[in-house]
Amino acid sequence: MTLSPTPRSTVARGKKRAVTSRAALYDVLDAGLVCHLAVVVDGAPVVLPTGYGRDGDTLYLHGSTGARTMREASSGMPVCVSVTLVDGVVYARSAFSHSMNYRSAVVHGVAERITDPARAEHGLRVLTDHLAPGSWDYSRRPTPKELAATAVLALDLTEASVKIRTGPPGDEPADVAENSRWAGVLPLHRSWGTPESDPTLVGPWEIPPHVTHRT
Amino acid sequence: MTLSPTPRSTVARGKKRAVTSRAALYDVLDAGLVCHLAVVVDGAPVVLPTGYGRDGDTLYLHGSTGARTMREASSGMPVCVSVTLVDGVVYARSAFSHSMNYRSAVVHGVAERITDPARAEHGLRVLTDHLAPGSWDYSRRPTPKELAATAVLALDLTEASVKIRTGPPGDEPADVAENSRWAGVLPLHRSWGTPESDPTLVGPWEIPPHVTHRT
Repeated sequence: MTLSPTPRSTVARGKKRAVTSRAALYDVLDAGLVCHLAVVVDGAPVVLPTGYGRDGDTLYLHGSTGARTMREASSGMPVCVSVTLVDGVVYARSAFSHSMNYRSAVVHGVAERITDPARAEHGLRVLTDHLAPGSWDYSRRPTPKELAATAVLALDLTEASVKIRTGPPGDEPADVAENSRWAGVLPLHRSWGTPESDPTLVGPWEIPPHVTHRT
Repeated sequence: MTLSPTPRSTVARGKKRAVTSRAALYDVLDAGLVCHLAVVVDGAPVVLPTGYGRDGDTLYLHGSTGARTMREASSGMPVCVSVTLVDGVVYARSAFSHSMNYRSAVVHGVAERITDPARAEHGLRVLTDHLAPGSWDYSRRPTPKELAATAVLALDLTEASVKIRTGPPGDEPADVAENSRWAGVLPLHRSWGTPESDPTLVGPWEIPPHVTHRT
């Protein structure tokens, strides 16, 4: 299944990096931890890091019901969401050809504020298990008061684009032929550290497997 | 020196995470690799990952002169830039108190397209050395044609905000007292892998120190 091209979700620059499979979109969204949500406030763009989670072709976002960006994002106005993973720095022979290896997804649409309690709770489950897989079942569920304090938004993944860059630098042939400078890729890795137990825990605690075995 | 508060650069939600020192802003911007640049195109927000670099109180951004977002960002219209570093996942006793440890900077302003060649080249030096420290001196400098193909923008850091979350979960006292679930932080680390030399290099090559010793 391919991504539906619209003028603004069709990659105009760097077409060779555009990827049009829906599976690639899912992969990028599922690999990220935080998205950048952009809205227009008083005619100016505002972009903020925001938690998210994906279920099928729905992206869930959440935030405080008091947050201005959440109010704007749920007002029926267009939003844009970007998820980016940097996989390495591309050292080229020329300054101009320096680049990054990355995976990037951009979604355009109108977000819907979810008011139905069951749907909102489902969205929070998706969000929680994206941030911390296994945590929804392990942790205390939200109270009605907590649910009321949380704005859950749903954004359809219909209008989206994906760009991926991998591999070595794309230097000019003359720079390659000269062979006078090193070029290559410095990979960037992301890894989980050792879990740090909350100091307010009482007694001996074994860290649960959904935390220790997180991949 | 503190950050200058304006209504939109004053943190409204999660005030306890707001940091108002300019040094903290510099730290976050200098630690990031990619920013998210938001502009308004045809009334809708567009946010894209973009390279950047900082020199004093100027943030440099660059992109293809043909890119729509670059044209919009350099048209005298407001832009917003966000740099986010995720430092860990906060596993709380309640789903509601789950969070991330992060450092976030958001800058509002009007970007200036730099047309003076010397200033543009300085901006590219800053951008290159942010992405790949040491690369500007090591690599081939841009040709006039390459310079002409690159839009360099400058954004003043006057109107900016910083939010930082560190430390253990902030669970409700009743959940802490119950002591029936583990809680803590799973740190997220970023590290450089082993440099991968470009397969088109000819002959034995020692990888230069600015790559091998990158911190």
